[in-house]
Parts: sequence; C-alpha cells; structure tokens
Amino acid sequence: MDRMKIGVIGTGRIGKHHINNLTSLVEGVEIIAVADIFIDSSREWAESKGIKFIYKDYQDLLSNPEVDAVIIATSTDTHSEIAIAAAKAGKNIFCEKPIDWNVDRIKEVMKAVKESGVRFQTGFNRRFDHNFKRVHDLVADGTIGDPHIIRVTSRDPAPPPVSYIKVSGGLFCDMMIHDFDMVRYLSGSEVVEVTAHGACLVDPEIGKAGDVDTAVVTMKMANGALAVIDNSRQAVYGYDQRVEVFGSRGVAVAMNDKPSTVEVSTADSVTTDKIPFFFLDRYTGAFVGQFTAFVNSINNNLPMVVDDDDGLKAVEIALAAGRSLREGCTIKL
Amino acid sequence: MDRMKIGVIGTGRIGKHHINNLTSLVEGVEIIAVADIFIDSSREWAESKGIKFIYKDYQDLLSNPEVDAVIIATSTDTHSEIAIAAAKAGKNIFCEKPIDWNVDRIKEVMKAVKESGVRFQTGFNRRFDHNFKRVHDLVADGTIGDPHIIRVTSRDPAPPPVSYIKVSGGLFCDMMIHDFDMVRYLSGSEVVEVTAHGACLVDPEIGKAGDVDTAVVTMKMANGALAVIDNSRQAVYGYDQRVEVFGSRGVAVAMNDKPSTVEVSTADSVTTDKIPFFFLDRYTGAFVGQFTAFVNSINNNLPMVVDDDDGLKAVEIALAAGRSLREGCTIKL
Amino acid sequence: MDRMKIGVIGTGRIGKHHINNLTSLVEGVEIIAVADIFIDSSREWAESKGIKFIYKDYQDLLSNPEVDAVIIATSTDTHSEIAIAAAKAGKNIFCEKPIDWNVDRIKEVMKAVKESGVRFQTGFNRRFDHNFKRVHDLVADGTIGDPHIIRVTSRDPAPPPVSYIKVSGGLFCDMMIHDFDMVRYLSGSEVVEVTAHGACLVDPEIGKAGDVDTAVVTMKMANGALAVIDNSRQAVYGYDQRVEVFGSRGVAVAMNDKPSTVEVSTADSVTTDKIPFFFLDRYTGAFVGQFTAFVNSINNNLPMVVDDDDGLKAVEIALAAGRSLREGCTIKL
Amino acid sequence: MDRMKIGVIGTGRIGKHHINNLTSLVEGVEIIAVADIFIDSSREWAESKGIKFIYKDYQDLLSNPEVDAVIIATSTDTHSEIAIAAAKAGKNIFCEKPIDWNVDRIKEVMKAVKESGVRFQTGFNRRFDHNFKRVHDLVADGTIGDPHIIRVTSRDPAPPPVSYIKVSGGLFCDMMIHDFDMVRYLSGSEVVEVTAHGACLVDPEIGKAGDVDTAVVTMKMANGALAVIDNSRQAVYGYDQRVEVFGSRGVAVAMNDKPSTVEVSTADSVTTDKIPFFFLDRYTGAFVGQFTAFVNSINNNLPMVVDDDDGLKAVEIALAAGRSLREGCTIKL
Repeated sequence: MDRMKIGVIGTGRIGKHHINNLTSLVEGVEIIAVADIFIDSSREWAESKGIKFIYKDYQDLLSNPEVDAVIIATSTDTHSEIAIAAAKAGKNIFCEKPIDWNVDRIKEVMKAVKESGVRFQTGFNRRFDHNFKRVHDLVADGTIGDPHIIRVTSRDPAPPPVSYIKVSGGLFCDMMIHDFDMVRYLSGSEVVEVTAHGACLVDPEIGKAGDVDTAVVTMKMANGALAVIDNSRQAVYGYDQRVEVFGSRGVAVAMNDKPSTVEVSTADSVTTDKIPFFFLDRYTGAFVGQFTAFVNSINNNLPMVVDDDDGLKAVEIALAAGRSLREGCTIKL
Repeated sequence: MDRMKIGVIGTGRIGKHHINNLTSLVEGVEIIAVADIFIDSSREWAESKGIKFIYKDYQDLLSNPEVDAVIIATSTDTHSEIAIAAAKAGKNIFCEKPIDWNVDRIKEVMKAVKESGVRFQTGFNRRFDHNFKRVHDLVADGTIGDPHIIRVTSRDPAPPPVSYIKVSGGLFCDMMIHDFDMVRYLSGSEVVEVTAHGACLVDPEIGKAGDVDTAVVTMKMANGALAVIDNSRQAVYGYDQRVEVFGSRGVAVAMNDKPSTVEVSTADSVTTDKIPFFFLDRYTGAFVGQFTAFVNSINNNLPMVVDDDDGLKAVEIALAAGRSLREGCTIKL
Repeated sequence: MDRMKIGVIGTGRIGKHHINNLTSLVEGVEIIAVADIFIDSSREWAESKGIKFIYKDYQDLLSNPEVDAVIIATSTDTHSEIAIAAAKAGKNIFCEKPIDWNVDRIKEVMKAVKESGVRFQTGFNRRFDHNFKRVHDLVADGTIGDPHIIRVTSRDPAPPPVSYIKVSGGLFCDMMIHDFDMVRYLSGSEVVEVTAHGACLVDPEIGKAGDVDTAVVTMKMANGALAVIDNSRQAVYGYDQRVEVFGSRGVAVAMNDKPSTVEVSTADSVTTDKIPFFFLDRYTGAFVGQFTAFVNSINNNLPMVVDDDDGLKAVEIALAAGRSLREGCTIKL
Repeated sequence: MDRMKIGVIGTGRIGKHHINNLTSLVEGVEIIAVADIFIDSSREWAESKGIKFIYKDYQDLLSNPEVDAVIIATSTDTHSEIAIAAAKAGKNIFCEKPIDWNVDRIKEVMKAVKESGVRFQTGFNRRFDHNFKRVHDLVADGTIGDPHIIRVTSRDPAPPPVSYIKVSGGLFCDMMIHDFDMVRYLSGSEVVEVTAHGACLVDPEIGKAGDVDTAVVTMKMANGALAVIDNSRQAVYGYDQRVEVFGSRGVAVAMNDKPSTVEVSTADSVTTDKIPFFFLDRYTGAFVGQFTAFVNSINNNLPMVVDDDDGLKAVEIALAAGRSLREGCTIKL
C-alpha cells in the first residue's frame, strides 16, 4: 500500500509536535506539505524534515493534488473555515479540538464533510491513551457490567496566562472539553443533563477574567449512569489525569503514569517518582495513537474512532456546563 | 486513674460489637451495665462478659450511680429520648449516629447536654480510621495547603433489604450521612450549598420504595472548596471506602485497605487481595479509636473529636441533599 | 468448653507482650499464673492483670494443678531445662525460639515431650503473619506450582547492643533462624545444602565480636528448589520483611505493610507511609495468631503448626550456615 | 553537526530491530550501509529503509569511507574478528554482548581498539532502562548510602530451544551475563568472589544438554557489598526484571513495568495488567537509550557508558560462575 501523503496546516508548537510524531512513529505516512501564515519562521525547520512543499497560504496546500489528507493545527477560530475548504478540496481531515465554539459553524463543517464524502477525525487524543483505552475496553467488553458512576479527574499542572484565559472560551470549553469527550467514550452513552459547580481558588485574576479555575461537573447519562468530572487549573504536583468506571459487575480505576517504578525508602521517607508535569510527556502514546487510528480508519474504511459528531457533542456539553454555572441550575441537553 | 464505668443501652449487633471492642481493646474502661428491652435474649451473653448490672429498662441503668457514661446503641427513633434522659441523669454520652432525623429533636438533645454539663460524642467512627485520619492530618498541618476539591467514594457491598430502606430515611440519611461528616472533617470547613443527583440502578424495588441507590452529591464549602461524594448501595467487589483532598500545595489520596500485600502473577493474570466486604472488618480500628477518644477526651477534659453539633450538621446536610434531589435544584444551608 | 488456664514463665518484655495479647485478643484462654526469678519488679503489673498465682520459682508454677499449659519466655539458656520439667509435669508447652543452641539438648526436650505426651509449639510467630501465610497458602494449594526459587528479605531496623551480639549466638542463630524456618514453611521442603556469605558493613564492633551484620545465605531444598535469604542488622528505613516464592506456575510476592494507604503528592515529592520500625508493630497479628493456633491445636487435637521438630531443624540449619561462613564452603545437612 | 553515518553488520532479528530504532527514534544518525552474508533475504527490506550501501561482505562496508561507525550484530563467534577489523579500519564500534567467550580474544579486541583510537561500546542495553538507571543514580548520588546488598531478579518468559542452549555458552554466559553487568553498574564496584548454585527444574532436556535452567549466584564486591542474582529460564507470567540496592542510608527497589495502571475489581478478583512477555517490549527505551548514548559519547568525546572493559568483566564473571557451579566452591576473581 502506498504511504498516505499528508499536509499539515499550522506549524506552531502542536503542529510541529504532530509532524515529529508522524515522521518518526507513525507507519505508512509521509508529510509532504506544510502551510502557515507565519511560515517564514518555520521554513528552515520544515526543510530539515525533508518536507517538499512549504506554503504560506493553506489554499495552496489544498490545491496540491498529491496531498491525500490534512491535519488542521491552526488556532481554533480558523478550524471551521479550513475544514470546510479541505472537505471541498476532497482531502481527508484531522482537525484539532474544538472544531469551533459555534455549534452552527460545526454543523456547517459536518455538512461539508458529508457532502464531499471525505473522512474526518477530531483531535481528542486521550481516547488513545493506554490507561483510558484499557478502562474503555473493560466497559465495552462487559467486564464492569452496566456503568453506574463515571469519574474523571483532570488537573493541569499550572494555569495558562490570564491573557490566554480571556480568549480561551473558559475552563469548560478549553480544558474540560476533553473530559466531556472522555465521559462519552468511557460510558458509551450520551449526556442528557449537566450541572456545573465552579470556584476561583487558584488565582483571583482568573475570576476577574470571568472564568473559574476549579470546577466539578455532574452529568446524567442516557443509560442512567451518573458522571462527575473535577478540574483544576493548578495541580502543583504535576499533570493529574485519572479515570474510573464503576458498574454493576465491578470497577476499573486508572491511576497516573510515573516515569519509573522505583520506590526509595530512607530514614526520612518513602518516595516514588513524581508524575509528569507536561501534557506532551503524559500523552506521547496517545498522540501517536490518534494518527495511527486516523491512517488505519481511512486505509481500511473503518469508522473513525472520534468523528465530527464527537467534536460537536463535546462542545454542546461544554456550552451547557457554562450555562449551568452562570444560571445556577441543571441544563438538559 | 480509676477505670471509666460504662453502661451500654441497646445490645443488638452494634451494641454487642461495641462491648466486645471496649472489653478487649480499649484501655481504662469497664462495662458494668447493659439495658435492652429485649434483654432476655442477651442476658446469658452479657453474663459471660462479666457485666454486673443487666437491665430491661434503660432508666434503671441511668439510675445506677456507679455508671459514669452511657453508650446509646438502640434504634434511631429512641436516641434523642434516651440521650436527654442520660444528660439529665448526669451521664456522659456516646450516641450512635444519627442523633435523630428531626433537627428540632437534636437541638433539644443539645440543650439538655449543655444544661447538664455532660460530655457528648456522636458515633461518626470513620473519623478514627487510620487512612482518613492521615488525610485529615495532612490537611490540618498544612501539607496539602488550602483545600480546593474534596472527594469521598463510599460504596456498600450490597443493599439492605427493601423493608429496611423504607424506614431508613433514605440513602442520604442512612448512608451518605457518614460522608457528609467526612467532608466536614477533611476540609475543616462547613457546607454552604448542596446539589444532589441520584439514580436507581441497582434494584428497581429501591426506586419503588421512593429512594435512590446511586448518588453523586456536590457541595460548596465555606472556605470556597468544592466537595463531591459518590455512593452506591452495591459494589460487588467489596466495601469501597476512599477519600482524597486536593489543595493548593498538593493532594492526599487514601485507597482501600487489603487483607495482605501479596501480588500473585500467573500465566493468566496478576491478582491482589480483594478488599474487605464487611464494614466491621473495614473499620475495626476506627471503632476502637472512637471509644479511646471518648475516654481520653473526658478524662483529660479535651474537646470531643465529634460532638453533638457535628451530629446536627450532618443531618442538616443530609436533609438538604434529599430536598435538592426532590426539587432538582441547589439548596443553600 | 472451659478456658485453657495458662502459666507464663518469664515476665520480661516478650513475656509481658504475650500476656497482654493473650488477655485481650486470644479467645478461650486465661492467664492464671506467672513465674520469674525477678518477679518482684513485675509483681504489681501481674496483679493489675488479675493473675492469681505469682511465683518466683517456675517449679512452683509447674506444680500448680490448675495450670493446663505453659508459655516459656525466659532467656534461651533456660528453655530446655524448663521445657523438660514442664513436659514431666504434664503441661502443654509453648516455647520461645530457639529451643536451645545445642542440638542434643533440643533432642532431650523432644524426648521428654514425646514420653509425656504433652503438646509442644515453637515460637516461630512469623508463620502466622497474614502476608507470609497467604504466600504459603498459594504454594500449598498449587497456585504457584512447584517452587523453584524462594526469597526471604529480613532486615532489622537497628542492631542490638554489641554486648548482646556477643552472647546471641550470632546473626544466623539469633536473627536468620526465623528466616530458615520461613524457607521451610514456604517451600514445604527441607534444606539439604547451605552456603553462607557474610560481611561486616554496619558496625566494625560487630565484626570484632566475631559476628557479621550483613549476610546472604543460599540453600538447596530437597524438592530441588533454590532458596536465598538476605539479612541486615540495620535497615534505617524500618523493619523490612518480605518474601517471594517463584514456581512453575507463577510467583507470589509479599511486600511490607504500611500504616496507611495514603499517597501524598506535592511539588517536591510523592510519598507514602514509612514501614513500621518495631517488630511488635509489624507482627502484632502474628503474635496473636500463634497463640490462637496453640489453643486450637490442643483443644481440637490437631497437628501443631510449628512443632518441636521445626524448632530443631531451624537450629541445625543456622549452625550449618555458621560453619559454611567460617569454612568458606557449602555444608550438606 | 553532521549526522553520524552508521553501517550495521548483521541484519538478523536484532540487527533489524536496531536499524528500526536508529531510524525512527535516535537523533543525529543515519544508517547508510548494511552487510550480511545472507543479505539476499534482507536486501528488499534494507532498500525500503532507504539504506544506500548494501553488502554481503562486511569488509566492503568497512572499506566505505563514508561510514563513521559500525554496529556489530552478527553471531557471537564472529564479533571479535569483525571488531578487530573495524578498529583497524578506524570505525567507531558498537558491539553486541558478549564480545567473545574467550577472554584472550576479548583482550585482542581491546588492544586493537586502543591502538586505533576508535571508541567502543558493548551492548549492555539494560544500563539504559529507565527503572534500573534510576536505581543506579540513587546509588551514585549517595541517596542510598554505601551499598550493602544488591539484588537482581531476571527471569525469561520461556526457555530458548535446547538446540540453542547447547551452543549458547550456558545460562551464566547467555542470560546472567546481563545481570553480572547490572551488579557492577548498580554497585559501582567490582566482583571479587563468585559462588554459583543451579538446578534443572524447568526442562530435563536442558540438564541433558549440560546446562541449568534455574540459578542463584552470590557475589562479594570490592567495596564489601554482597550481591545476589536469581535467574530462571521460564517465568510463565512474563519477563520478570527487577533490581534492588540496599545501603547504609536506605533502599531503592525497582519493580516491573506494566502496560497500564488500571486496577479492575470484580466480585471474583482484583487484577492488574500482566507484565510484558517479550524482551523487546520491556527494553524498548533501553535499546534507544544505548544508541543515543553511543552517539552522544562520540560526538562530545565523553566516556562510553559501557566500554570494552565492561564487556570483558562480565564474561570473566560468567566464566567464574560456571566454574563455581561445576566445582562446588567459591571462585575468586
């Protein structure tokens, strides 16, 4: 089988990270093109990676008939426009989350994708994490029985700059959106009710910017299960990412990964390794996994593991959670 | 110092359990009297324990001038009446939780206790569990910093008979009341808002009896922290009791105890011990600890670790949680 | 069934510890007598425990017809003499390890026991530890298959005074003797060859006293398995007690117990509880267990879990290990 | 800096594995040449990897002036001849372990390396394993204090074919040689005495071939520490690789890696993931790490992390262990 020829649109930090992973760790792909409006600062880097076509304008990349699929890794506000153009150009699409903050815009993307018949994957990489996937599989194969309670703990090591928070869409859209997708993924069911609680405990400037930095969101699922997510913008001990599904036949609990298994006992203390601080370290395998799945689903005509509808649903839940917090009540979806 | 002379009122399962623990494991006490309206079926057992005074009517026990303190282990509906009588008789009081389901009745008990000057401890034994106390101490000594998120998982191995559930006051009063106290104990703060979510997933008969068997309750604390409790009436793998406090300086996580540390690896699987199934096995140390503290607080005139006000607060939260579930809204306390 | 009436000979630290455990935690027994040549310093303590007969001379205790069984907790050099006298007096015997350092003396004890028909248990309490017993049971029930490698790690938190070491019989007799018994217990087989390696790394004074403080002993078992024990007189982090049995069908690994399950993560470190420092804390359950088994074996006429032959075998192995170290060669038993 | 141009001699399983790792995961290298006497069966594979020079005769590869360094991944009996030729050709050398079974031949290699001034690394990849390196670092930085006891557990999931065992040099040379190097690496000291114990418990055919399949080897180190290694050819539960260093200030224990952190509790059991079965899965990071170190040491003129003398020492210890087993005595080095 020929290698899939990929163009990457957006060569910022995450775009470069994807290119590195795709080049070294994903089988059956070749990065042949990149596009970025600030391409000048990345041109030399791209050349050193052996990338043949280097564009400023993403439309040029989409016009290149050699490109089979695109990865959209630009800023969120440009995702939908580029995705629609890519669909019309007949390119398969991998789009970073969220597709858009506007539900109508996402639906336009979905319509374009459907009409053009291209394949579409949303960048919820955590579905491909080894720990979370194992919990998912234990639910899916019936080991845990019917899910009754789903718990997701997701805490960042440090808050982003307040300047970023102001344009981020808020904690529910920027951070918890991954966890909303996780709840759907683990439970195999849809959210029907959302109740959000939030507080500003990490940095008062975040509160002044109109956001919370600590939140607990409770959901009722279509299959009757209850789900609860807790988020904090600042876990000083590292990037804390755990999930649990409790069901009629048992419970599956995923703890954090640690760099080594070594336990050190001295007269003073018993210590183990700290958990990773940086999300790229935590989710290395998940980033690789999502692209492997993207290639595999297209090549073998299998369902996408995370499709455009998954991208839509997570945004709808995030927006409902924001409304619940503002209005102090439960929101039905 | 003379040994404290204790009378136990109520010699059902829990009363007998307390007597066994007090006799063998608690220093500085002596059980000299018991009273139970069904004393005939326990008389022989009590005699074999060397208990001197065996009564049918608790008033006789309260009239015995040798008795220093009483343990009230009768059914809940009789607690307040007995407690008030004991206070008037000048006996120090250990009362099983809940003191009463009626807040006004609890306040009458508190008034009687205050007027008579006796000491009063409520039976929230879990505060004396080695794991939970360790988390509490790490919060109290500042290791965890300001608490931001408190999590309590508390799942019973199997539901009680539906006939019991009908008279139990419901999951919030009967089961989660321990966890409400735990949230107050771990956070060192008071609940100001409660939102309850519940479902009937274990047994539809429980739903028909007007109760839920699965619940998630979220609370806002006076110090700003968020707390979340999840309960299930049926964890088929055992009595699942875990807590976690996340704060500005770190996190403390208490997992379940297991009977041994042995890990067995075979060609088929890697297994460890199952967690205990029975609450008396799980909380053996806690049951002993609460009585040790009771004796110690009285003998050394120290504050009670769990007093009558703690008994009141937990009931108020439980009642608010029930209202939240019925009305579908957040309740302020 | 009547309670077994026990006399304790030797009321030093370990004797008092046994009395406390027997009084509070072991069902079906009663301590009615004690004897100690230094009884004056313990008389008041014994009276406070409600012990009826308090003797200076152990012969008086043995002459008391009310005494059913004796616990010998005196210094090692008096064990065999007292045990023989007790056997002749028709008392069942629980004797602290080692029975004696002299194999012939042990055989005399065994002869007296056999002739009088009394029951005899040697104080290898660790067989009753919850972790080690679980490993034993997994071997015994075939889960691990045929044992191939047995590993015992046993390290004391701090060395005894050098003055004690001089009279202790040395590390193999004083400390590793428990582990020799453990190897026999876990493997279900007999030692046929011993090779000892030792070093003096903790304190040169121990070396000057003719002993080692660090040792690794390898054994070949009758069933073909290899066993290895490592000992140190000083593990600064606590009382390190672990075992492992590896076999044809799997492996069972017993780690140390910890006071709580709490894991604390801060910006600086991830810590768990330190292991216990004191052997009485580590083996609380095992001390109780050995007496429960003693009473049970006698009352129900079951085989003793650790008999006099077990006491003999461990001493034979310890003496062989000492010879192996001195002679630099493997010793066959 | 220019990328290091590498030629790989030997394209069997391990050679191909190295090429894959070097191509995708090691920075700053380029595989430009391969040589193998059976190159015809690997030619297509090599071309697909974009390798420019494909030889049958390794001398042709050594004659290619573009090659900076060679990786010797042929069968053991050819290592020394090729290594000497490579040294004379002025190529830096990475040589699989063991360099040779004959100590004199190894010394000839060392002489050739010294005379030509090339750099030489021996393929003890486990020094680069994340867990073992962490233990090493804790010893090296003084956290553990002076090492007193070093323990290495190393058990293969399944024995190789008996036909292979016959030509393998035996368990000590073929399998435990890695562990001898590990003991030197962890302790920072040299072996001065070896005592070997072995048994044939897995497969009698291995015994008929003159080898053991189960072994425990004890060593005395120059710094006084005792070390013990246990090996089995068959751990049915997976590839069991653990180490521990106990010292004057504490202990560091490295357990096995597991594919996920998930713990599953059901009514029947509590299970976690099985450990990896295949050594390439277990030591993925270590294989990458050894080449990263190779490149880094050469480029920055740093000491090799594992040099030719390390290759010699491990063989000397393995041969001494074999002699100890045959002669039933301790061997001094």
